[in-house]
Amino acid sequence: MTIETTIREIAAAARNAATAVARCSTNQKNAALQRIAEKIMQDTSFIKAENEKDLIKAREMRLSDPMIDRLKLEETTLQAMADGLHDVARLEDPVGSLSPARTRPNGLKVSRMRIPLGVIGIIYESRPNVTVDAAGLCLKAGNAVILRGGSEAYNSNQALAKIIRRALEDTGLPGRAVQVIPVQDRSAVYALLKQEEFVDLIIPRGGEGLIRFVVENSKIPVLKHYKGVCHVYIDADADLDMAQEICFNAKVQRPGVCNAMETLLVHQSVAEKFLPDMAKRFSVAGVEIRGCSETCRILPEANRAEDADWPEEYLDLILAVKVVDDMDQAIEHIAKYGSHHTEAIVTRDDDRAGHFVREVDSSVVLVNASTRFNDGGQLGLGAEIGISTSKLHAFGPMGVNELTTTKFVVFGEGQVRES
Amino acid sequence: MTIETTIREIAAAARNAATAVARCSTNQKNAALQRIAEKIMQDTSFIKAENEKDLIKAREMRLSDPMIDRLKLEETTLQAMADGLHDVARLEDPVGSLSPARTRPNGLKVSRMRIPLGVIGIIYESRPNVTVDAAGLCLKAGNAVILRGGSEAYNSNQALAKIIRRALEDTGLPGRAVQVIPVQDRSAVYALLKQEEFVDLIIPRGGEGLIRFVVENSKIPVLKHYKGVCHVYIDADADLDMAQEICFNAKVQRPGVCNAMETLLVHQSVAEKFLPDMAKRFSVAGVEIRGCSETCRILPEANRAEDADWPEEYLDLILAVKVVDDMDQAIEHIAKYGSHHTEAIVTRDDDRAGHFVREVDSSVVLVNASTRFNDGGQLGLGAEIGISTSKLHAFGPMGVNELTTTKFVVFGEGQVRES
Repeated sequence: MTIETTIREIAAAARNAATAVARCSTNQKNAALQRIAEKIMQDTSFIKAENEKDLIKAREMRLSDPMIDRLKLEETTLQAMADGLHDVARLEDPVGSLSPARTRPNGLKVSRMRIPLGVIGIIYESRPNVTVDAAGLCLKAGNAVILRGGSEAYNSNQALAKIIRRALEDTGLPGRAVQVIPVQDRSAVYALLKQEEFVDLIIPRGGEGLIRFVVENSKIPVLKHYKGVCHVYIDADADLDMAQEICFNAKVQRPGVCNAMETLLVHQSVAEKFLPDMAKRFSVAGVEIRGCSETCRILPEANRAEDADWPEEYLDLILAVKVVDDMDQAIEHIAKYGSHHTEAIVTRDDDRAGHFVREVDSSVVLVNASTRFNDGGQLGLGAEIGISTSKLHAFGPMGVNELTTTKFVVFGEGQVRES
Repeated sequence: MTIETTIREIAAAARNAATAVARCSTNQKNAALQRIAEKIMQDTSFIKAENEKDLIKAREMRLSDPMIDRLKLEETTLQAMADGLHDVARLEDPVGSLSPARTRPNGLKVSRMRIPLGVIGIIYESRPNVTVDAAGLCLKAGNAVILRGGSEAYNSNQALAKIIRRALEDTGLPGRAVQVIPVQDRSAVYALLKQEEFVDLIIPRGGEGLIRFVVENSKIPVLKHYKGVCHVYIDADADLDMAQEICFNAKVQRPGVCNAMETLLVHQSVAEKFLPDMAKRFSVAGVEIRGCSETCRILPEANRAEDADWPEEYLDLILAVKVVDDMDQAIEHIAKYGSHHTEAIVTRDDDRAGHFVREVDSSVVLVNASTRFNDGGQLGLGAEIGISTSKLHAFGPMGVNELTTTKFVVFGEGQVRES
C-alpha cells in the first residue's frame, strides 16, 4: 500500500468509528476511558520497554537533554495520564444536550442539540502524553481521532495506541475510534490533510513551523494555536504591590509556556515608582530586561530593546518593557505586536478595566490576575486540547465542549411553509 | 498595481476598518444600516442605470431568462433590500454581551464576551441583493466585509458599493468597512483567498464548482454550504394526511431551493396505503417520480430510479422515492446519500422521533414539519447569510450571532498561579 492509500484507509475507518462513538451513551464512553487508564497502569513495563527504544534512538541522534526528558515515560508520567483519563470521565458529557426550545409564531419548537464534530486529526510533536490526553478528550466528546505524533516518540505512541485500542474493544467501542498513524514519513501528514471527505477538523500542536505547514496544506478546517506574545499593562492607578506579584508570576513561574508574559507595558505616570523595585526582583530571579528608551532611563542597567524584541515570544527569562503614554498606546502596542493569545491589565478603576477588556482582541483578557491563568483547567473547562488563537469555532482554551458543535432540532405538528 | 497588490491593499484596509467597526456602539451601527437603506431608495435611478449596463451585457452574452431575471434590479427588489436593512437594524446586537460569570475556587470570575470575527470575505454569484444583505449582517455583527459578486453583476454591485460607502461615511463609520472588489478577473478571488493575514473567514455562496474552488485554494477558514439533498421519512405510524401535506410542501412549494425535498423514504408497512394518493397529487403538480423497485411495483407509472438518483440534488420537480424496511434503513440511506443539510421524519411516536433526531447527522432535523423550514428567518435567527453544512463554528442557518465569536474575560483581585 502506498502511504496515501494507508492514510485514506485509516481516515475511512475513523469515519465509520465516529458514527458508532457518536451514538455511545455517557456510561459507555466513561467505561472506555477508565479501561484505558487501567490498562496503562497494568502494562507499564510494556510501555516503558517501547519508550526505551525511542530513548535509545534519541540519544543516538543526540537530541537535547530537555527533549529527551519530555520523551521519557516514567511511572509518574503514566500515572498522570491515567489520572487525566479519570478526570475526563468525570466531566459532564455535552453530547445530546438540548438548548431550551423557542416556540415560533407557527408553533414550531426550535432548539439546538449538541453533537460531536466527527473525526478529528491531531498532529503534534514529542510528548507522548498528548496521545492519551487528546484521545480521552476526543472520545468524551463523541468523536473519533487520528493521531500523528513526532517521529522521535514513534514506538511509545504505537505502544499507547495498542493499549487504547484493546481497551476500546474490551468495552464495546470500535477499536479504530482512536488510531495513531503507523507511518513515520512526513508525507503521511500531507496525505492526512487531504482527507476532507472523512476528517472534520485538524488540530496542530507544536512549533510555528508545524502549524504553518498544516495551514498551508490542509483542505480540512484547522484550529491553530500560534505563539503567545502575552502582555501585562500596568495602569496609572494600579495597586503597584499587586502589579509586582502579577508580573513576577506571569514572567517567572513558568517562563517556557505560551501564557507567560513576554512584554510589560507601564503607564508613564507610575513607571518611575514601579520599575526599579520590579526590576530588582526580576534581577534576583535572573530575568533579563530589554527596555524602551524611557525604561532604560529609569533602569540604567537594562539592555536596550530592538524592534525585533516587541513581537518576540522568548519562552525564556527575558522580558521586553515599554513605558506608554496612556492606555490607548498600550492597546495599540498590543494590537500591533500581540498574538491574540492572553493580555492582562492591572488597575483599580473598573471603567478603565472595562475599556481594556473590550478593546483588546485576545482569546483571554484578564483584569488584576496573571496571564498564566489562560488554561482550560484554570478557567473551569476541565482538561484542554490546546489554546486556539483562531477566532473560528473556538477562541482560547478548548475543552470537551469545544470539540462538539450543534444541530437544530425542530418539533412540529404538521407545519408547512406558505412562502 | 497588480491584481494581487490591489487585493492585498483592500484586505489591509478592511482589517483597519474592522477594528473601528468592532468598537462602534449599537446605535452607530443601526444608524449606518438605516442610512444605507435610505440612500438606496434615494438613488434608485442611478442603481437602475448601472444595472441596465449589466442587463445589456447579459443579453449580448445570451444568458438564460431566469439568470437575467435574477440580475434585474426593479423598484420592488430595491425596496426589499432597504426593508431587509431595517430588519437587521432591529435585530439584537450580540457584540459585547457577557455570559453569566462563573467564580473559580480562587475567586477568579470567568465569563465569555461575544466579539466580532473581524474581516469576512464573501464570494457569490449573480444576485446583486446579496451585496446589500451580506453587508448589513456583517456590519451588525461588528465585522468588516469584502464582497466579490459575479462578473455578470459587476456594474450593479459597484453602484451599490458606492452607495454603501457614502452611507457609512455619512454616519461616521469607516467607508472601507464594506468593499466590493473592483476586479472582474477570477485571479482576484484567488488572491483574496491568500490574505490570511487580514481576513478571518471566507463564505462562498453559489454552485458546487465555486465552493470547491474556494475550499481548494483558501488559506483562510471557509464556511461552506454544499448542496441540499434533503429527505423526508414517513414512519410506520405516521399520520398519513399530515405526511402528504408535508411532502407536498417540501417538494412543490419551491423546488429550486436547497431545503426542498429531493428523496422520499417510506416505511414498507404504510407504502401501499400512502404512495398512490401521494403520487396522484404529485402528478397533478407535474412532479416526476423516480422510484426503487418496490415503489415501481406500487406505482406502475413511476420511472425506475438509477444509482445516480439517490445522491442527486434535482432542484426541480423530480423526486426519488424509496420504500425502506425500517427506520434504521432510512437512517442508513440518509447517512450514505444525504448532504448533512435537512432531514424530516413524520411520526406519531415520540420515542421513534427522538431516535431519528439523535441519529441523523444533519444541520436541521425536523419532526412533523416541512424541510422548507431550514431557513434563518423561519427558525428565529432573523436574516441569514447562508446555511452551513460544515460542522465547524456554525452548522445550519447562520444569522448575526454566527458572524461573531467569544473571548474569555477574567476579573481577579491579584490572583497568581501557584503551579
